[in-house]
Amino acid sequence: MANQYDIIVIGGGPGGYVAAIRAAQLGFRTAVVEREHLGGICLNWGCIPTKALLRSAEIYHYFQHAKDYGLSAEKIGFDAGAVVQRSRGVSGRLNGGVGMLLKKNKVDVIWGEATISKPGEVVVTAPKKPAMQPQVPPPKGILEPGTYQAKHIVVATGARPRVLPGIEPDGKLIWTYFEAMVPKEMPKSLLVMGSGAIGIEFASFYRTMGAEVTVVEVMPQILPVEDEEIAKLARKRFEKQGIKILSGAKVTKVEKGANSVTATIDDGKGAQTITAERMISAVGVVGNIENLGLEKLGVKIERGTIVTDGLGRTNVPGIYAIGDVAGPPMLAHKAEHEGVICVETIKGLHTHPMDKGKIPGCTYCNPQIASVGLTEAKAREQGYDIRVGRFPFVGNGKAIALGEPEGLVKTIFDRKTGQLLGAHMVGAEVTELIQGFVIAMNLETTEEELIHAVFPHPTLSETMHESVLDAYGRVIHV
Amino acid sequence: MANQYDIIVIGGGPGGYVAAIRAAQLGFRTAVVEREHLGGICLNWGCIPTKALLRSAEIYHYFQHAKDYGLSAEKIGFDAGAVVQRSRGVSGRLNGGVGMLLKKNKVDVIWGEATISKPGEVVVTAPKKPAMQPQVPPPKGILEPGTYQAKHIVVATGARPRVLPGIEPDGKLIWTYFEAMVPKEMPKSLLVMGSGAIGIEFASFYRTMGAEVTVVEVMPQILPVEDEEIAKLARKRFEKQGIKILSGAKVTKVEKGANSVTATIDDGKGAQTITAERMISAVGVVGNIENLGLEKLGVKIERGTIVTDGLGRTNVPGIYAIGDVAGPPMLAHKAEHEGVICVETIKGLHTHPMDKGKIPGCTYCNPQIASVGLTEAKAREQGYDIRVGRFPFVGNGKAIALGEPEGLVKTIFDRKTGQLLGAHMVGAEVTELIQGFVIAMNLETTEEELIHAVFPHPTLSETMHESVLDAYGRVIHV
Repeated sequence: MANQYDIIVIGGGPGGYVAAIRAAQLGFRTAVVEREHLGGICLNWGCIPTKALLRSAEIYHYFQHAKDYGLSAEKIGFDAGAVVQRSRGVSGRLNGGVGMLLKKNKVDVIWGEATISKPGEVVVTAPKKPAMQPQVPPPKGILEPGTYQAKHIVVATGARPRVLPGIEPDGKLIWTYFEAMVPKEMPKSLLVMGSGAIGIEFASFYRTMGAEVTVVEVMPQILPVEDEEIAKLARKRFEKQGIKILSGAKVTKVEKGANSVTATIDDGKGAQTITAERMISAVGVVGNIENLGLEKLGVKIERGTIVTDGLGRTNVPGIYAIGDVAGPPMLAHKAEHEGVICVETIKGLHTHPMDKGKIPGCTYCNPQIASVGLTEAKAREQGYDIRVGRFPFVGNGKAIALGEPEGLVKTIFDRKTGQLLGAHMVGAEVTELIQGFVIAMNLETTEEELIHAVFPHPTLSETMHESVLDAYGRVIHV
Repeated sequence: MANQYDIIVIGGGPGGYVAAIRAAQLGFRTAVVEREHLGGICLNWGCIPTKALLRSAEIYHYFQHAKDYGLSAEKIGFDAGAVVQRSRGVSGRLNGGVGMLLKKNKVDVIWGEATISKPGEVVVTAPKKPAMQPQVPPPKGILEPGTYQAKHIVVATGARPRVLPGIEPDGKLIWTYFEAMVPKEMPKSLLVMGSGAIGIEFASFYRTMGAEVTVVEVMPQILPVEDEEIAKLARKRFEKQGIKILSGAKVTKVEKGANSVTATIDDGKGAQTITAERMISAVGVVGNIENLGLEKLGVKIERGTIVTDGLGRTNVPGIYAIGDVAGPPMLAHKAEHEGVICVETIKGLHTHPMDKGKIPGCTYCNPQIASVGLTEAKAREQGYDIRVGRFPFVGNGKAIALGEPEGLVKTIFDRKTGQLLGAHMVGAEVTELIQGFVIAMNLETTEEELIHAVFPHPTLSETMHESVLDAYGRVIHV
């Protein structure tokens, strides 16, 4: 029966395609339904292409500081088209890669929009709009719209930008991440609404490329999910780079001009207007729960996302959900792990729910930010008696040698047990460093093992060790 | 009694000054004897200034590939003097920092050459030669040569370049790392004898800056301590960059010209001559065991280094040794930890010897190399039934976005217990990544915990996770 599968995954993003590959590894006959682009937002319009843009910005930044390294260059410049084309090329290459991975693992791809017509059945109709990122190589041997059966249906439809009423993105003057990723030319001035990871990464990119950037954040703290001390340090660095930041402030009105927007911003004390060529709306994302037939099936939804038991199971047998559509944190790596746990649960393997307190978060601005576990404030809120360790990059030899002396590693321990409760970092390469603390937290490490570990010299990672030492009054290099 | 200490540390390198600070933290009245420069070779003529040089080379390399990132620049160049000056500045700054750290911790510094005249007594005489790196800020309140007492004397005198008879460095045509660190101008051609970390880092630096570089290694494998597969991959990359490598080959004769050396190299099959402007001798280091009075005291020495019990104690009560002079691996981070263990042992704290199998090693060439634990060959030699996991950088989104698609992570597990026995990496930023595996090995992690850990996306560190998955037939992105 060609239309019969063990598992159909709806959505070919990082959660969906990883779940499908793992399902195939476990022996399930598996298909993925995708309406637009394999790899999802993350690979085509999110994590990956922004990292490519930010890489160009990073190296452009080095050019601007050539003299600091004993180097010289004249007529430094960039070609906005080429920077964007490189980024699109990276996405295209990886998008093609996902197609090949699925093929290699014998996962079928069904191209179109899926609705769960009843438990065990998925109806796929033709995609409503052409893909924004062409699938390369072009889908060959990919299945057509139609009706497909599967005992297990995994909803992995992801999320889309949240829209504020009255400030609807129009794709021309008011952008979401889609348009912000492919500027035809660099705007001279930019207003970024929202200072989460997406907003801050674009602010950092466009500022490095020369735009006047203003960030408006409704909360008193930028990067609201991060530790306050880290966010403050990052803010100071952004401001030093010339980014204007208005926090505790709200965009109350936006008026569009011919080639600009004028926003009215209220910070509680008064209103001001800011005019910029372009505006980016980065006020979060909402789960794609519509048109899937979930209501008819009685799948439980809360706060706009599907409720699961932590192993991917919804309240309706045979219907599962993973990734952004299954709730926060809306991060690709969380989606991937949920996908794996979900299909392993279907297989009957001994699984246990992911501990959401051990999922790291990264922001790839300059300086980078990375964290895992409880912030200082959250740890206190939860009643922990804590020890806090801090170590600044300026005390680290490698940081000085790299010319990256600004950064901080903060670690939070339970005073009673010595357990590592959280780690928070700002500075060069911290998105690559945080995994050490993730591994440590997964092993319920105490300070003793971390103190005993020999971190290589000279590396930035020594700041992690020293931060732990500092929490216990044993720091050396400060 | 001004000349009376609890602990005198001989040598202010990374082992010595860290031991002294830790001793002061533990309440010991402590002094360090240093004859030349606080921070030792590592900080003044080793790890740190080479990292500064390599940083300039890294950024120069980006400049040369500007177009790949959508950027442009004309008249790209470097000022050798400025590159070197930056590197010296980094060392100078950190060297001053060590002085301040010692002062802050109330550790006295005695300036001169030390001899242990008898247990409990150190005689310090004036330094025999002026410092190559001036101490900044100038030593104030630093103690003069004289006779000092201490119940505990810690020898932390480090190591110096090994010299091959007939190929003695002359500082002009034949360099050690001292001269290689401060070239007046870039040599057009360079012969590097020895392909350990020091030789390879200089080869990488000078090649990037434009020199014709030949590396001669007596062993069949370059980077002889690394895993064979990793070393082979690195070699391929070096050769692609235009570095000529002769392995299983020996320099048998060197003739000096006016501004060049001509070396005769025998690879067992025949001899050839290579002429280069400069030659670097990087054939390892030997411990500084001389003129300390060790023979008279009867301190046990084997293979040129002081024998200890793993807690820093020699066979003579009251005499301790740490760092390079106490044997391999001769790495700064090993010295630091030995220093801490040694003084904590003196304090009577519950210490245990460092597990030398869990000390990471890093080489900061392009691509970087990092490892910890057993190589595949060593694991097999020791009789382990192993599982090997591999993951190439080309399967990693961040690597593609960075433009760094060449690299490999290899993990080795005990098939019986699942214990991580070793990890070996080549590629961008691996020197910063390896700490995750170090932490894992310190916690005697098995594959299960590593598979369960959520590595952030998109990061290079995901290659670590995938390598573990691969060892267990569960890899996703390949």
